[in-house]
Amino acid sequence: MTHCNLKSDFNLITPHPPIAGLLSIFHEQELTETVHDTNGHGYLATFVGKHGRLVILRVHSRGLVTIDLQCYEEDNIAQLDNLLNALEKKLKVLLNGNITRIKKLPALVRGAKVDRYWPTADGRIVEYDIDQVVYDEDSDYQNIKILHSRQYGNILVLDGDVNLAESDFAYTQAITGNGRESYAGKEVLILGGGDGGILAELVKKKPKMITMIVHIDQKVIDGCKRHMRKTCGDILDNLKGDCYQILIEDCVPLLKKYVREGRMFDYVINDLTAIPISTAPEEDSMWEFLRLILDLSIQVLHPRGKYFTQGNSATLTEALSLYEEQLGKLSCPVDFRKEVVCVPSYLEQWVFYTAWKK
Amino acid sequence: MTHCNLKSDFNLITPHPPIAGLLSIFHEQELTETVHDTNGHGYLATFVGKHGRLVILRVHSRGLVTIDLQCYEEDNIAQLDNLLNALEKKLKVLLNGNITRIKKLPALVRGAKVDRYWPTADGRIVEYDIDQVVYDEDSDYQNIKILHSRQYGNILVLDGDVNLAESDFAYTQAITGNGRESYAGKEVLILGGGDGGILAELVKKKPKMITMIVHIDQKVIDGCKRHMRKTCGDILDNLKGDCYQILIEDCVPLLKKYVREGRMFDYVINDLTAIPISTAPEEDSMWEFLRLILDLSIQVLHPRGKYFTQGNSATLTEALSLYEEQLGKLSCPVDFRKEVVCVPSYLEQWVFYTAWKK
Repeated sequence: MTHCNLKSDFNLITPHPPIAGLLSIFHEQELTETVHDTNGHGYLATFVGKHGRLVILRVHSRGLVTIDLQCYEEDNIAQLDNLLNALEKKLKVLLNGNITRIKKLPALVRGAKVDRYWPTADGRIVEYDIDQVVYDEDSDYQNIKILHSRQYGNILVLDGDVNLAESDFAYTQAITGNGRESYAGKEVLILGGGDGGILAELVKKKPKMITMIVHIDQKVIDGCKRHMRKTCGDILDNLKGDCYQILIEDCVPLLKKYVREGRMFDYVINDLTAIPISTAPEEDSMWEFLRLILDLSIQVLHPRGKYFTQGNSATLTEALSLYEEQLGKLSCPVDFRKEVVCVPSYLEQWVFYTAWKK
Repeated sequence: MTHCNLKSDFNLITPHPPIAGLLSIFHEQELTETVHDTNGHGYLATFVGKHGRLVILRVHSRGLVTIDLQCYEEDNIAQLDNLLNALEKKLKVLLNGNITRIKKLPALVRGAKVDRYWPTADGRIVEYDIDQVVYDEDSDYQNIKILHSRQYGNILVLDGDVNLAESDFAYTQAITGNGRESYAGKEVLILGGGDGGILAELVKKKPKMITMIVHIDQKVIDGCKRHMRKTCGDILDNLKGDCYQILIEDCVPLLKKYVREGRMFDYVINDLTAIPISTAPEEDSMWEFLRLILDLSIQVLHPRGKYFTQGNSATLTEALSLYEEQLGKLSCPVDFRKEVVCVPSYLEQWVFYTAWKK
């Protein structure tokens, strides 16, 4: 059961266009008209036709005509597109040059088996070229999807948020210092990173030891090691290797243990989650979790070490500022810098942070 | 006059959900109901309310409920969002776990002064974070817009196609060989490139001479030299410099003249246009133009020279294959390679070609 919405909008100079001439087109298509009383808010008519077709025609009172056409995907879309074209042509004649903009949008597809709409972090609608659901599991903690895109490869989506695609080596590069660091012989701590991208990249650099704490959710690893191999290679096939170990547990008690033991890392890479969008950091448990992890991470960071993490969409300036405020409140004072990076599958510019002890 | 469309979709296991319980919510909101005869295609009711509000409730016959809510931007959006939330809550109770997916999409804004929807080349809807129309001119050849995006800077849009944003140095890099070429002392021909990005970059490389033929449209240069300065710097302020000249004319007769004179270039960079999406190359004048330019360009290319150009969206495999077929039919035989690049503001992966004489 898939349903399509086609739309055509017309911005006009004329506030009250003569649209009676359009009606014959609807009647020719055997659409049954209902004119609604809008109580002074322009003209509104709905037209119901065969095969479950529905057209909504609105003439708004200050020079805007909107036409919505709903139909089923198995309907004759070309015929309906022709209907919209006929309406457009007729409106152009009726309005004789008084149209300032005509906008047709790609059809919105609703209820489809494969959902292609995964809004950006800053709340914009974007449609991905997703053609297949490769993995879809509910763990005890979240919904885990891996979706196939023709251009981005497989995409890991956690609770509806695009996390990482096989095309997104730029993400891995950015969160490991964009090639400016030397990991050889170093102690590295990765928090999160269940897709294996960071680990797969850093083991190539001959570090002394990488400890990766995948926060709780084994099912992320299960999905990624099968379906995100362009990202993780074979690194997730074993939880232990010559220079790495993967721990699947709650990272908070473990970090606290490291603090007690006085353990230090040259690099701490926090790949747990983007910073919260909510701008009420005092009330939000996500912010509380973030502050706790951040504080513990800096405590286990070597005095000359570096802490890397993702921020969020470059347009979420308020959330980013709040994060930077948190950086100023840690038990160890830190300096930081940020960098804006294009991660292909995100469809928005992304901010990454580097912090170090003052 | 700006109009918003909110949508909530519910995929169900139940084919005929008991939705009568929803109606009280509409009535509480003083929405007047019309139930339409769909001739067996499920339940369809429209509800008209104050302030020009309209809700369309459809219960499709195979387990899909769609709710569309139309209102004006100056309406109480929070209240309407609450209405959708109340409907969602009620449906969850009525259906008692039989819902497999709930999908709310960001509101579609229609008729707004600043249009934020600029579909990708492969026809997907995407919403940009555009907050201002910086330049909007109709030349004799096309509509030229420069739109401001918070994350991409100013974006040049020609006839509705996103051409280049100030964030898109990756485009300039890709169409000049991704840093693998040495332009010092070389003769370079740029076709198109009216935004000045390629020219501004290549003059830094100390070429012998760059000839840039901006195909006809002076107004592109006028807009870009004022509003795309992160891309072009001051290079468009003068049509002539120590090692470059900009010619604003039809490039076909000029290329023919170069062929007659036996002029040769070490690099030809065709930045005129993406390859046509249409897959009827024998009938389409865009393809004819493309073939002509391509053939003339290769004729003026030095035997050890390189020809660079953009292709199109990586997902338009049919159009790309057709282009590659054209490369096989030139009067001078060529070899080619292609590269997929992420250009930030495009929101889709983009193919670039390099060709050279066999």
